[in-house]
Amino acid sequence: MASTAPLHPVARQALNAAIDEGWADPARLYRSGRQARMLLDAAREGVAADLGARADEISFTASGTQAVQLGILGALRGNRRRGAHLVHSAVEHSSVLHTAELHEAQGGEVGVVPVDRHGRVKATQFAARLTDATALAVLQSANHEVGTVQPVEEVADLCGNVGIPLLVDAAQSAGRLPVPHGWSLLTASAHKWGGPAGVGVLAVRKGVRYASPLPSDERERGRVPGYVNVPAIVAAAASLRAVRAEAEQENARLHALVERIRTRVPALVPEVEVVGDPVRRLPHVVTFSCLYVDGEVLLGELDKAGFAVSSGSSCTSSTLTPSHVLAAMGVLTEGNVRVSLPYGTAEEDVERFLAALPGLVAAVRAPLGLDLRLPAAEPEPEPVVRTADPSADPSAEPEPAGEAEALVLDALGKRCPLPVIDLARRIGEVPPGGTVVVLADDEAARLDIPAWCDMRAQEYLGEAPAARYGADRGTAYLVRRTD
Amino acid sequence: MASTAPLHPVARQALNAAIDEGWADPARLYRSGRQARMLLDAAREGVAADLGARADEISFTASGTQAVQLGILGALRGNRRRGAHLVHSAVEHSSVLHTAELHEAQGGEVGVVPVDRHGRVKATQFAARLTDATALAVLQSANHEVGTVQPVEEVADLCGNVGIPLLVDAAQSAGRLPVPHGWSLLTASAHKWGGPAGVGVLAVRKGVRYASPLPSDERERGRVPGYVNVPAIVAAAASLRAVRAEAEQENARLHALVERIRTRVPALVPEVEVVGDPVRRLPHVVTFSCLYVDGEVLLGELDKAGFAVSSGSSCTSSTLTPSHVLAAMGVLTEGNVRVSLPYGTAEEDVERFLAALPGLVAAVRAPLGLDLRLPAAEPEPEPVVRTADPSADPSAEPEPAGEAEALVLDALGKRCPLPVIDLARRIGEVPPGGTVVVLADDEAARLDIPAWCDMRAQEYLGEAPAARYGADRGTAYLVRRTD
Repeated sequence: MASTAPLHPVARQALNAAIDEGWADPARLYRSGRQARMLLDAAREGVAADLGARADEISFTASGTQAVQLGILGALRGNRRRGAHLVHSAVEHSSVLHTAELHEAQGGEVGVVPVDRHGRVKATQFAARLTDATALAVLQSANHEVGTVQPVEEVADLCGNVGIPLLVDAAQSAGRLPVPHGWSLLTASAHKWGGPAGVGVLAVRKGVRYASPLPSDERERGRVPGYVNVPAIVAAAASLRAVRAEAEQENARLHALVERIRTRVPALVPEVEVVGDPVRRLPHVVTFSCLYVDGEVLLGELDKAGFAVSSGSSCTSSTLTPSHVLAAMGVLTEGNVRVSLPYGTAEEDVERFLAALPGLVAAVRAPLGLDLRLPAAEPEPEPVVRTADPSADPSAEPEPAGEAEALVLDALGKRCPLPVIDLARRIGEVPPGGTVVVLADDEAARLDIPAWCDMRAQEYLGEAPAARYGADRGTAYLVRRTD
Repeated sequence: MASTAPLHPVARQALNAAIDEGWADPARLYRSGRQARMLLDAAREGVAADLGARADEISFTASGTQAVQLGILGALRGNRRRGAHLVHSAVEHSSVLHTAELHEAQGGEVGVVPVDRHGRVKATQFAARLTDATALAVLQSANHEVGTVQPVEEVADLCGNVGIPLLVDAAQSAGRLPVPHGWSLLTASAHKWGGPAGVGVLAVRKGVRYASPLPSDERERGRVPGYVNVPAIVAAAASLRAVRAEAEQENARLHALVERIRTRVPALVPEVEVVGDPVRRLPHVVTFSCLYVDGEVLLGELDKAGFAVSSGSSCTSSTLTPSHVLAAMGVLTEGNVRVSLPYGTAEEDVERFLAALPGLVAAVRAPLGLDLRLPAAEPEPEPVVRTADPSADPSAEPEPAGEAEALVLDALGKRCPLPVIDLARRIGEVPPGGTVVVLADDEAARLDIPAWCDMRAQEYLGEAPAARYGADRGTAYLVRRTD
């Protein structure tokens, strides 16, 4: 249940065979070099066929990240006569975001397409971001954190209508789902489909302009410099072929297992939100967030119990910023758990996970002494409309809460999930209709307090300068108790 | 006898073990992730110790080429307050030259340090190229085509005196020879020391300024983006340790085998020039050039006989330009053969090579019907001083050869080695003191005609516009018959 998977047995076999037969430099003229070249050519043909590309469109990179970086920078460079405007969705992989940041730092412009609460872009909203100066658009096939599948073919049609090249980052789906039509550039990563580390794919459709941003090199059609890793590429191709052959059946199996997790986790664990599109989703990924939980602590407990899961939670990342994906979706970022089922995951393992999870979450929450309810025991009220939704004018501040009825909670210096825990513990101290003001300086509070209000059917009033409540830093988040 | 070597048995064992134990993402918090991180840390410690660096100075790249590109561009960026001047030797690996070209295309300046006839830089000449604006100097530990070892520590001292960082490209020597002291940045490639493809090393000394030219990424100290290839890195470290342990003994053995080739080839094959420094050289590399031979044809014959050798010859490269290394040395580029002895090369294989070579070269030359002499049968005359040496003013044209005594050979449209073959065949038609004019448009002629004159003790007079001899393109090369 991890961000990568062990090497597929077919890939390992191919790797060891290719180390024997394909160790030489495929650029060399002697026999062992020609043999390596033949293996490389065959692997390229295979990967091309499996991804719906021509062999001469495929370049092998050292990683999916390198494929994304080169794909974006090379397409921007090749299309710079159109302009320097780049468009991507708000929930792309960090490799896309970081490349866009570099492009901006070098004087380029970037437009970001928002997503809905499920993390999905609308094709029309995507098209609305395109301008006359747009040189490249980027969209993932499916989201890496929440599994939501994007409307790539619709977006490709709209981009195609105005002649703007579209790079499709297929890292999450290649090998599992058919590659969507309409891409101009395509990127993928072999270790995601059971291949070895060290192999990414960059495909550039014939006729699409591309100018390498790197020093020139003859290898891989001038797109990827450096000695070509033939054995790993051979193994990657073998693994792709193997997983593609099993994909339909395995997808159905994993889809049902994920459905089981999606349905049962909210019934087993109080105050949990399953995120991502429930229908248009990857077969093997499921993500949920647990209120009042430090994601890193929960991951540690799950790890001790033998479950390797990841987290987009602000509390686990070394950068201390909340997941940009969950933030763009406007959902809770605390206590986030992402489960990714590798090929062949046994049903028993999923059952074991579902059996262990409630106790582990409860143990993490126990010291808080909160009253937590399962929807089965007491049905959740309909969520109220959030007063401050992401599309509202952020400069419109709520009226200051009257001093008389407002409870001011000082959570300054406290890290996620503590501000939300404070709020949950103390909101009962004001009467229904009363206001709680949470002063906080952890960036995650900006996402998690509105998300908590949504989940608990409390009214989020918006934010105000903390100085209004006597604080010298941070932000004031205003919540009205409804029940 | 190739540019790479089969995977070292120790490396293969480590690779397969690490595929089992280190397949997970080392950035993850769960058990398998932590285990991968431990293996990666241990590999980094090992490689650092073997290369004379600290573990926190080492970043693993996807290839030696990527290490060179990132090392140069990152150091230039980190030191841009010094200026935008880059200095490198004329015989660096193409990855250095191509990175310098990109730097120049982006507005930077590049100074190139010449080499002597053995391909060696002089430290004082290197220092003379440094300016107040020099942000980085680059020097290889040893040359990849001719094996000449460079005076790195002397150059490092001179750079250090003026505070200019020095990048040492140790790809050819790492694992075989101790890494020279004094580097600011160090690059290497694991497949050169029997490790797997897909692993390069970039070391940046603590305190040396570095600013990544790529989109930001947390991995490998922010220097190399993308998923970290732990199994291959573990294998690379294991191989480095293994070859270092055997290096002293194996170097002595290979050094003697190379010495045998250096001595015996000129005694066995007529009109051959062994190039590269005879003393300050790599233990395992030897390069020679055969007059009147198309290198690609000879390589094909050697390949059929079971010998995998390379060539820097203009006739074999897909770019059709002569080897920049041989050109900078001012030696013959035609019929070039580079023999690189892998670890464990058997003495019998070398003897087999020496037994086969004379017949193969003779067969390639047979159709030419030239009179070729071995130095044993008829001692080579002392070479005369070349009239037009590379340091001479290239704009100083020789006097036009008098129409009466000049023999004009039209080699326009003929590719290396044909112009030299024409010259050798027909120079006897003019009397001693007479002049032959070769009209040629193959770029290799500019190098090979003077080199032929050196080898054959004929006087090279220089070049002149071909128009003077009625041709509409190309160059006229003037040679005076001495004997």
